[in-house]
Amino acid sequence: MEAFTFVLFGATGDLAKRKIFPALYNLFLDGKLSNAFSIVGLGRREWTDDTFQKHVEESINSFSRRTADDESKMEEFLQAFCYSALDVTDENGYKKLLEKIEEREEERAIPGNRLFYLSVAPEFIDVITTNINKSGVGAGNGWKRLIIEKPFGHDLKSAQELNEKLSKAFEENEIYRIDHYLGKPMVQNLEALKTANPVIASLFNNQYISNVQITASETVGVEERAGYYDQAGAIRDMFQNHMLQMLMMTSMQLPEQMSPEHIRNEKRKIMESLRPLQKEEVASHVIRGQYGSGEIAGTQVEGYKEEPGIEECSTNDTFVAARLWIDNDAWGGVPFYIRTGKRMEKKSTRIVIEFKDKLEHTSKAGQKGAEPNLLTIEIGPHESVSLQLNLRNPVNHGNIERASLSFSDPNKDVPEAYESLIYDALRGDPTFFAHWSEVELSWKWVQPVLEAFEANSLPLHTYESGSMGPEAAHQLLADDEFKWW
Amino acid sequence: MEAFTFVLFGATGDLAKRKIFPALYNLFLDGKLSNAFSIVGLGRREWTDDTFQKHVEESINSFSRRTADDESKMEEFLQAFCYSALDVTDENGYKKLLEKIEEREEERAIPGNRLFYLSVAPEFIDVITTNINKSGVGAGNGWKRLIIEKPFGHDLKSAQELNEKLSKAFEENEIYRIDHYLGKPMVQNLEALKTANPVIASLFNNQYISNVQITASETVGVEERAGYYDQAGAIRDMFQNHMLQMLMMTSMQLPEQMSPEHIRNEKRKIMESLRPLQKEEVASHVIRGQYGSGEIAGTQVEGYKEEPGIEECSTNDTFVAARLWIDNDAWGGVPFYIRTGKRMEKKSTRIVIEFKDKLEHTSKAGQKGAEPNLLTIEIGPHESVSLQLNLRNPVNHGNIERASLSFSDPNKDVPEAYESLIYDALRGDPTFFAHWSEVELSWKWVQPVLEAFEANSLPLHTYESGSMGPEAAHQLLADDEFKWW
Repeated sequence: MEAFTFVLFGATGDLAKRKIFPALYNLFLDGKLSNAFSIVGLGRREWTDDTFQKHVEESINSFSRRTADDESKMEEFLQAFCYSALDVTDENGYKKLLEKIEEREEERAIPGNRLFYLSVAPEFIDVITTNINKSGVGAGNGWKRLIIEKPFGHDLKSAQELNEKLSKAFEENEIYRIDHYLGKPMVQNLEALKTANPVIASLFNNQYISNVQITASETVGVEERAGYYDQAGAIRDMFQNHMLQMLMMTSMQLPEQMSPEHIRNEKRKIMESLRPLQKEEVASHVIRGQYGSGEIAGTQVEGYKEEPGIEECSTNDTFVAARLWIDNDAWGGVPFYIRTGKRMEKKSTRIVIEFKDKLEHTSKAGQKGAEPNLLTIEIGPHESVSLQLNLRNPVNHGNIERASLSFSDPNKDVPEAYESLIYDALRGDPTFFAHWSEVELSWKWVQPVLEAFEANSLPLHTYESGSMGPEAAHQLLADDEFKWW
Repeated sequence: MEAFTFVLFGATGDLAKRKIFPALYNLFLDGKLSNAFSIVGLGRREWTDDTFQKHVEESINSFSRRTADDESKMEEFLQAFCYSALDVTDENGYKKLLEKIEEREEERAIPGNRLFYLSVAPEFIDVITTNINKSGVGAGNGWKRLIIEKPFGHDLKSAQELNEKLSKAFEENEIYRIDHYLGKPMVQNLEALKTANPVIASLFNNQYISNVQITASETVGVEERAGYYDQAGAIRDMFQNHMLQMLMMTSMQLPEQMSPEHIRNEKRKIMESLRPLQKEEVASHVIRGQYGSGEIAGTQVEGYKEEPGIEECSTNDTFVAARLWIDNDAWGGVPFYIRTGKRMEKKSTRIVIEFKDKLEHTSKAGQKGAEPNLLTIEIGPHESVSLQLNLRNPVNHGNIERASLSFSDPNKDVPEAYESLIYDALRGDPTFFAHWSEVELSWKWVQPVLEAFEANSLPLHTYESGSMGPEAAHQLLADDEFKWW
């Protein structure tokens, strides 16, 4: 890794504290960062370098998966951090910023490699990137890169507008859009699962697979995010980005070469093959839900409409389930079911691949009790891969019973998504970031759903908190003679 | 299950004590035996019923996987046992035996269903079955069945002679030849693995499988069996029966109907497709070994030639490895490697199915560290099924590493092979017994190997006790660019 400057907009914010500083620190402990680096924090508050460094240290003590045994390691790490107050709309501020960056580059013998991390509200992205460009802050003698966080727009049009603005200051290959689900070890393993395992690769198509189920269920409710969430809903907060990215990662074909460009290309092909929904079809393929009151892990919780900051008449979706079709050679005829929601029975992100029963003649003859074979990839909260088979239980009269072959990572101390993603961005590897074409095509697919929700042209099912979503979501699969696993 | 009489020749012997009585007892505890049954023990010794019952009770206390909580259960079980001394060569003795059987049948309202279990030295089989036939003991008003134990002959000719004699007294469908490997839960699961699991069935052919490895390794030496073993060797003691039966169970095609006849038919087809070895080819495909001294689990052990009862010049094989080919559509081009031996590093019976790397283009591009996918069926000492995949280890720089998905039966108290087999014989289900055609075809395949061993036309490799056999057995696979897993 080349020496770099990490310019962090929103350095006093929540994401920086919970994710970014701990991620950098763990990379540092692992010796994965270049020997020389400089981290410039920017925010509205007037902090000194010392205040900022103390803040970083506290954040690490609270949120890092590891802390150093060695006090001097922490000291060395914190030395890389400095802080400047910046009014992001003030062009002059960027000149001062440039001076500071250059001064530290000289001090630390860092070439002009600059990563700009925008951990700010979406309305500031435009002005910041414009000013980075104008002021010369983006014109070092090395590379420049931009990391931005979701939301990438509120709908197709706003996403396109945002991207147009971005693209005036940064080339597409300089933009690293974080979808932190792409940083999760088991999502990254989907590629290895298929490319490094002939048995999986051989089975990974519509000849053998009957359907694919992608679930991300949360137990939490809207928490302190009412203002944002009530405008976004599960469809924007989870579905358009994380869920569709998992669908792409699951279904993309193996490129012959594993370069980031080839992978992007394959992901784009999936999104282009995704059968578009007409607005009037949405009600047949998409289920919308909102949590009512209920009980989770023994605790009574309120319904969505009773949450602070949510209006009593909100029709916002806290649950979405959908049936999607990929109309290509590999996946034609295989439904992909996606569901995500808050206040569900348990926290779990997983992909279940259900295999066809290709043995109907034998299964009739005495294979009573055989269930479909399933390949389950548990993405969180724990990582595992399991294959559900049917075996005779010698204890129970030799009856056929489910037997789950499973692998769980024995190492509990797995790098967080932000660690891998920041590491990749610093190395210039865009494999696990969302390319504009993927983002745009995702919005295109979602747009009629947004409009149908807006027009209230499909029911809003209330589901009990602590359940696995509304009955209609179960019926969606039952109609196809499947069930959620 | 219909009520039956179980006539046990060799009732005072070792197998009866260690396996047969405990098996019957566990079936009884499970309520799997018919309500009425009678067990008539026969031996040379003059025992009373009472002595015999005490002997049975002791055997159960020493060798049964379970003992009853309930004293009255044991009492009830033992009541079914009686004993007669019998000189098996004395025709008159069988008349007395018949009277006894009939008397007890009447007492216990048992129809004339009679199972004859011959746990005797092979030289007595002929005279016993002849006398059963002549005396009318075999002519009850119900079914008659015969269970016999290995060895079924010493070579092809003697096996054919033995079978000819047997077939004068019993029909083939009345003969249950025990190969206790066929009673092991995981061997029985090979059928379910393929018939109840579409993903396994789809992969189970030469399109996906590169080779199959069947290992049965023991740590024990010749023990107290020198007299028998030095004449038999690993080739007769293990290879001709257990190892070839496991090969058949692994490779047989799924019959459309799962009847015993269909399964026998498929097993026979495998043996008929097994490429015959000419005597002069044996040296290229078969490795013969004999253990030298060495260390097993920290204990120094002597070489085979130093064992009591073994002559210093013995050329007997205590280890055999072989490469076999099944010339049919499903398996053409897939080598089956078999190895079995005594005094090896560990006790393990397992089948490893190695899959082809069908992804050569991608595996070159960054799948460094990927190993072949393996499906491993552990038959003993513990039962398990595992699938070895390659996954990225997020802790170790995302490198590809082996990940083993595995299932072990959580129940430690699994029925022993003899339980299932005796149960099947009592119900008249011959699925997991060795049919004459399989036995004969196995001897046919093995015959040139016996002759080559006899003629000393291939090397006898000495291997260190505690090793995994002679280097030549590793070279056998290395020649094909494989290795033992």
